[in-house]
Amino acid sequence: MTSSKEHGNPMWGGRFKTAPSELMQAINASIDIDKRLYAHDIKGSLAHVAMLADCSIIKNEEAALIAKGLHQIQEEIEKGAFPFREDLEDIHMNIEARLHEIIGDIAGKMHTARSRNDQVATAFRLWMKDAIAEIMAQLTGLADTISKQASIHEHSIMPGFTHLQIAQPVTVARHLGAWQQMLSRDRLRFGGCLDRLDYCPLGAAALAGTSFPINRAQTAEALGFKAPIGNTMDAVSSRDFVLEFLSASAICASHLSRFAEELILWSSAQFGYVTLSDDFTTGSSIMPQKKNPDAAELIRGKSGQITGLLMQMLMVMKALPLSYNKDMQEDKEAVFKAFDTLSLCLSAMCGMIGSLSFHTEKMKTDAGNGYSTATDLADWLVKELGLPFRKAHHITGQLVRAAELRRCKLDELELVDMQAVEPRITKAIYKVLDVESAVRQRQT
Amino acid sequence: MTSSKEHGNPMWGGRFKTAPSELMQAINASIDIDKRLYAHDIKGSLAHVAMLADCSIIKNEEAALIAKGLHQIQEEIEKGAFPFREDLEDIHMNIEARLHEIIGDIAGKMHTARSRNDQVATAFRLWMKDAIAEIMAQLTGLADTISKQASIHEHSIMPGFTHLQIAQPVTVARHLGAWQQMLSRDRLRFGGCLDRLDYCPLGAAALAGTSFPINRAQTAEALGFKAPIGNTMDAVSSRDFVLEFLSASAICASHLSRFAEELILWSSAQFGYVTLSDDFTTGSSIMPQKKNPDAAELIRGKSGQITGLLMQMLMVMKALPLSYNKDMQEDKEAVFKAFDTLSLCLSAMCGMIGSLSFHTEKMKTDAGNGYSTATDLADWLVKELGLPFRKAHHITGQLVRAAELRRCKLDELELVDMQAVEPRITKAIYKVLDVESAVRQRQT
Amino acid sequence: MTSSKEHGNPMWGGRFKTAPSELMQAINASIDIDKRLYAHDIKGSLAHVAMLADCSIIKNEEAALIAKGLHQIQEEIEKGAFPFREDLEDIHMNIEARLHEIIGDIAGKMHTARSRNDQVATAFRLWMKDAIAEIMAQLTGLADTISKQASIHEHSIMPGFTHLQIAQPVTVARHLGAWQQMLSRDRLRFGGCLDRLDYCPLGAAALAGTSFPINRAQTAEALGFKAPIGNTMDAVSSRDFVLEFLSASAICASHLSRFAEELILWSSAQFGYVTLSDDFTTGSSIMPQKKNPDAAELIRGKSGQITGLLMQMLMVMKALPLSYNKDMQEDKEAVFKAFDTLSLCLSAMCGMIGSLSFHTEKMKTDAGNGYSTATDLADWLVKELGLPFRKAHHITGQLVRAAELRRCKLDELELVDMQAVEPRITKAIYKVLDVESAVRQRQT
Amino acid sequence: MTSSKEHGNPMWGGRFKTAPSELMQAINASIDIDKRLYAHDIKGSLAHVAMLADCSIIKNEEAALIAKGLHQIQEEIEKGAFPFREDLEDIHMNIEARLHEIIGDIAGKMHTARSRNDQVATAFRLWMKDAIAEIMAQLTGLADTISKQASIHEHSIMPGFTHLQIAQPVTVARHLGAWQQMLSRDRLRFGGCLDRLDYCPLGAAALAGTSFPINRAQTAEALGFKAPIGNTMDAVSSRDFVLEFLSASAICASHLSRFAEELILWSSAQFGYVTLSDDFTTGSSIMPQKKNPDAAELIRGKSGQITGLLMQMLMVMKALPLSYNKDMQEDKEAVFKAFDTLSLCLSAMCGMIGSLSFHTEKMKTDAGNGYSTATDLADWLVKELGLPFRKAHHITGQLVRAAELRRCKLDELELVDMQAVEPRITKAIYKVLDVESAVRQRQT
Repeated sequence: MTSSKEHGNPMWGGRFKTAPSELMQAINASIDIDKRLYAHDIKGSLAHVAMLADCSIIKNEEAALIAKGLHQIQEEIEKGAFPFREDLEDIHMNIEARLHEIIGDIAGKMHTARSRNDQVATAFRLWMKDAIAEIMAQLTGLADTISKQASIHEHSIMPGFTHLQIAQPVTVARHLGAWQQMLSRDRLRFGGCLDRLDYCPLGAAALAGTSFPINRAQTAEALGFKAPIGNTMDAVSSRDFVLEFLSASAICASHLSRFAEELILWSSAQFGYVTLSDDFTTGSSIMPQKKNPDAAELIRGKSGQITGLLMQMLMVMKALPLSYNKDMQEDKEAVFKAFDTLSLCLSAMCGMIGSLSFHTEKMKTDAGNGYSTATDLADWLVKELGLPFRKAHHITGQLVRAAELRRCKLDELELVDMQAVEPRITKAIYKVLDVESAVRQRQT
Repeated sequence: MTSSKEHGNPMWGGRFKTAPSELMQAINASIDIDKRLYAHDIKGSLAHVAMLADCSIIKNEEAALIAKGLHQIQEEIEKGAFPFREDLEDIHMNIEARLHEIIGDIAGKMHTARSRNDQVATAFRLWMKDAIAEIMAQLTGLADTISKQASIHEHSIMPGFTHLQIAQPVTVARHLGAWQQMLSRDRLRFGGCLDRLDYCPLGAAALAGTSFPINRAQTAEALGFKAPIGNTMDAVSSRDFVLEFLSASAICASHLSRFAEELILWSSAQFGYVTLSDDFTTGSSIMPQKKNPDAAELIRGKSGQITGLLMQMLMVMKALPLSYNKDMQEDKEAVFKAFDTLSLCLSAMCGMIGSLSFHTEKMKTDAGNGYSTATDLADWLVKELGLPFRKAHHITGQLVRAAELRRCKLDELELVDMQAVEPRITKAIYKVLDVESAVRQRQT
Repeated sequence: MTSSKEHGNPMWGGRFKTAPSELMQAINASIDIDKRLYAHDIKGSLAHVAMLADCSIIKNEEAALIAKGLHQIQEEIEKGAFPFREDLEDIHMNIEARLHEIIGDIAGKMHTARSRNDQVATAFRLWMKDAIAEIMAQLTGLADTISKQASIHEHSIMPGFTHLQIAQPVTVARHLGAWQQMLSRDRLRFGGCLDRLDYCPLGAAALAGTSFPINRAQTAEALGFKAPIGNTMDAVSSRDFVLEFLSASAICASHLSRFAEELILWSSAQFGYVTLSDDFTTGSSIMPQKKNPDAAELIRGKSGQITGLLMQMLMVMKALPLSYNKDMQEDKEAVFKAFDTLSLCLSAMCGMIGSLSFHTEKMKTDAGNGYSTATDLADWLVKELGLPFRKAHHITGQLVRAAELRRCKLDELELVDMQAVEPRITKAIYKVLDVESAVRQRQT
Repeated sequence: MTSSKEHGNPMWGGRFKTAPSELMQAINASIDIDKRLYAHDIKGSLAHVAMLADCSIIKNEEAALIAKGLHQIQEEIEKGAFPFREDLEDIHMNIEARLHEIIGDIAGKMHTARSRNDQVATAFRLWMKDAIAEIMAQLTGLADTISKQASIHEHSIMPGFTHLQIAQPVTVARHLGAWQQMLSRDRLRFGGCLDRLDYCPLGAAALAGTSFPINRAQTAEALGFKAPIGNTMDAVSSRDFVLEFLSASAICASHLSRFAEELILWSSAQFGYVTLSDDFTTGSSIMPQKKNPDAAELIRGKSGQITGLLMQMLMVMKALPLSYNKDMQEDKEAVFKAFDTLSLCLSAMCGMIGSLSFHTEKMKTDAGNGYSTATDLADWLVKELGLPFRKAHHITGQLVRAAELRRCKLDELELVDMQAVEPRITKAIYKVLDVESAVRQRQT
């Protein structure tokens, strides 16, 4: 007879002559990472065991005993009293082994009509449903915070940039509104991801289903899934839900990195558009006066991490035949890390935007530089003089050049100098050359 | 007066003393890539011009003249008679310059109340709507082809693998069904992408909207968009629709790479499960007998290309402030390439699957190897002897070991040898040890 | 007067009205990651302080006191008795704060003529030098292990594959030798990386050097660097050494993933070329007979992780202006993770290869299938009959086809059937059609 | 007898019943991409044929005839008179087929003792040797251009930044020198790559070598390689030289993207540090006054493309077993694209830097803002008053705060206000508070 000591892992060691080496344990064990799934694993097991009893596959007393043991384990874990063992590889084995300690051999019935493959997939999908709901709530919170700033600055004027050159005056509200729109699409993308992953793997067993007369609809419903996954091999082999979550996260992180870049630029001495709250900046060990936009820089950089995790999982999944392959075990660490990072970035961005002070005078001054109303001038030439757009554009270019030579703004050019370029220009033109009327005219 | 010759690009050269160098042209010109947008650019311009006339911003005759010119240009391009000029940078400038040649200065009115930024974004989104529709149709076609093979092989038995080890017998139909499910989610993902990009940028102009009294709803509707994009800076600055398209493509390519890997494995001499049609294989220059699964290998490798393009654009977009930056110009080449590659891979996969011959005897033989019905044996022990699953599992392990020692299959073990391990086993057990009944029992 | 309590971080808090929020601490703190640098940080500080004393910038007694304190801290850390504080952000601040507790205000002199920027860069480069040396030693060890297997199987015959089709017979030694060559180039790549990073940042201070009369050559030499880094802004701003390390790691991981794929294929039932040691395989929770090549699968998948980390850092570094930006803080976690993973994969691969059993009979049998000596036949036609290669190739193709029709091997074709294709063929041809002579003829 | 028409590709069609479909041709053909290798392919063939003759494997007259034909083909290609055929797949088949048209059946002897696998690998490595040499020359050119600007601005003062906050004054020369150092390491990295790929694959044939008595050293030497590749399977299966080239390119592109970001920032109205030459900027279709830093933006964005290509190839190579697999065919397109892009970016950067005008007054003014000499003040407190660094740091923080309250610079603080913070401060302190002396003091 073989004791578990000789064979390392008492769960699957029956056949092995040698215990897995320490090296194997180091490369194989996932308990440090997947213990985070404990509550969702227990939730899945409770639903499974209740169903087994309802289908008379195990007895009601057995189910009750198992449920009681699982609740005890959940408490132990939450109190920090659970003895995690790396030699048991993962959270699922740890829980089952502990259940065996608590209730004895009946514990072995929990795994009837189930395999670790569908068990893990179920716990993981349950966890992801919660995680996505949390991200979506954070996105809503960030959008609200942006809205508040936008409504405070509905009429504050700032330069709109293209190529980081001052292009046309806009309102701060419009600028912020662009970010709000992008984040609202991010929210929709996470919603789409949730929609597609909201199916229950239980009953797929290792890959081929089970011969026990189980009720898959019952467990799916009990766990809040829309339905069981139709194809059992799909249930244990597909990871597109992981890739889609990472993609949505990477796209969202891309938006955050762009917004963070603006905060970094705007809080530079040269721009001077905003002051970040002390809560999200740090000093320097040698230059005590510095107020470094660390949180914004970290958000900018973290987009690299999330993109890297997406790259990782696209590469891991490349060319893997059906059904489960051990490579896929990497999915949880990648998803947990992407979630933690994105969630932290959303919180930090929310805090930064909420506590941001705008220097509206500097913004407005800049908005008037760079001949930013040249387009309005060109539009005036079209509307008032009936010039074709390209012709009006050309004349505007000559007027800008004239202003450059005189080192003045467009509205500081003399009418006579304008008329030297285009004789039909009248003094009415001066009404379109200041930033406020330019912005007002575009409030369509 | 400045002639276009002196200044290189007659569209925006008014201010420049020096013509852009050849180098700049090489790095800046996109005409080789974006000429593909010609039909969608013309479509966008036609809708814009019709709206301008309806809003009395230009005259009806002018709109008619412009429309006539644009139709002529479309014909010229489709006949191969259009003189593309690299010095005009992109397709949009090429078309406008040619329009000027055909209809004179009225051509300049086409660009009224519009900028290249909203114009390009519109043409690109129109193109992508068509592209996504095509990919979705191809996904449907591939799913149908898989279905046909699955229904032919509804009862053909093959090994189900985990870790590329024979695990349990399954049907070919179930195996193929897993791919069908993944591809059907790919289709949904493209649908979600389409949903989110189906808004019209026209009217955003450079970034800040326009002071002309345009009707954005009219152009959006005429072009088949759901609505205009609400925020003008979002309209010209966001590229999440590009990232989402590339993500959906990369995930789909990941599925294709996995399926392709199976075709490569299955057509190896060692597996011998399938023969690929000559149409999708090639020979070798030195080994004339070889039938290489080139198409499958290329599909496998192309997932790298599409993933690379996604990584490219995530990196390009990182930390770009609003609004348009030239870096974004890369988006079209990346999307075109991903579309072409994915479309080609879907077609090739469809062709390969449609013409695939399965060697069902070899598959069935393999399905019986590797003690693949061990799970059924364990389940029998649970169901008939009432053992806890983990105990049944352990006993099964010992029986497998006994069979290994005797170098026989499980159903070739003598009853007496089985009873040496577990005395309560009866000869009824032999009914669950062959692959066909194992598969039949799981048809739930 | 401001106490450190009010301001959170006593190191740089002098100016701040509000303590950094918990959120900021969560996003900003790196102590969990960089505490790993403790020994290298202390080593760097010891060299710096000794130099300061030698240059009379601080007193010898002060230097001695600091050194004593640092040694005590190193002991505390190594004994597990060091009280790490997250509010002090990183290992460097933790050590300095502890030093202050131990020796009082003299601790403040350690940071004279130094900034956290050059301090961190120095500790990190010192750590990387050790890490690269370890990877290089592991690569040597793995190459040796491969060599041993190759010399055991110098004459064992196996199929050489192209496109996973049997192509030509080769020896196991030759096949293994290919991996050895690739790994030896990996070793060279790490050597190149080491060469380029082996310069000392100390003296760069924050970015601009220091006005104290320090001796940069002394610290560089004391720490075993080739020289100080010439440009102070390069010293604190460049991370190409990180990118190069990650690239070399990703390329090496690519080789390991390929080799691991072969182990997975070869240990499948269909190939049956090798048996992996129990130490590197696991069983299954439901199929006790399985021997899953987990370690090989994990190595295959880990190439995704290392590539993802490279992607991450390339994206983090994109478009960062000089000099230090907080985004760069990500570099250490990425490098540590890549190192740990690569080192573990190298160890596991070494263990797997060292304990691998080859089934040489099955390999040799396969090597004779697939008309694998067709090339030899074609070469014979060239050498003996003087045919142009392409003609010989064509005739060989016809002979293969004839053998296929008769379902026999090439050396089982009757001479008369061969002569029907090419009359000049003689029975001498049979000498080149078996795998052993084919292999022997190529031992050039 | 089979004609080439029936079988599509006359080179390897002998066995096939059906011609490859158009689809297969589309996915398989590489002629559009690899025709670029023509000169290197011909060079390789000439060396191979000369060796065959020297080893008496073919006759001298035959070799001469083949050489003459190949020279004619090279001329045809360079004159644009060569009839490229997609149905012949690649450049190598195209050349051989054309050779057959020119010299008849003797053409078939060129491929004696060679396979397409070693032939392609040889041509590709030869091409890469030239490409790397060109990149290295461009890097030298760019470094020289930077040096020239640095020597012009040896004493021009600008702010040194950390976190994009003004930190300490530095010289323009020091700032530019940092880029020069990074680019010089890029050059070394390409050199290392060249070193490792400089071995000749010829003689490896398909994978297993050849039975012909060839002289591998002769071809290696004739083609300028250091030696033949030792292991024949390594010769046709490894692509680490591709991955290393792409890594070196991506790291170099990362440096260029960072430098480009600075040019974009510096040419913004807010910074106003430089004016870019008109040659590397463009205007806008609606805002004629804009001078957009397009070339810098494209360089910044192109780092995404090169990184994407690296990711592509790392993913393509993942888990590919030996030896040649068709997936690898992607390598050439990726390398060509990375080379073209990097080469163009280096040229454009060289042009931009060479023609850059610095606005040294604005730079110097900014260098004095942000209390940038606070470090010097702290150092003075250490040196003159003997304070521990941390204490001096703290006092400096209080002085900065005092200056902030008074909205003045540090050197505008009254001595009495300074002494209120630290009574021992004397008026000598004013000597270290201006930027020029601060910079001068650090010229160590």
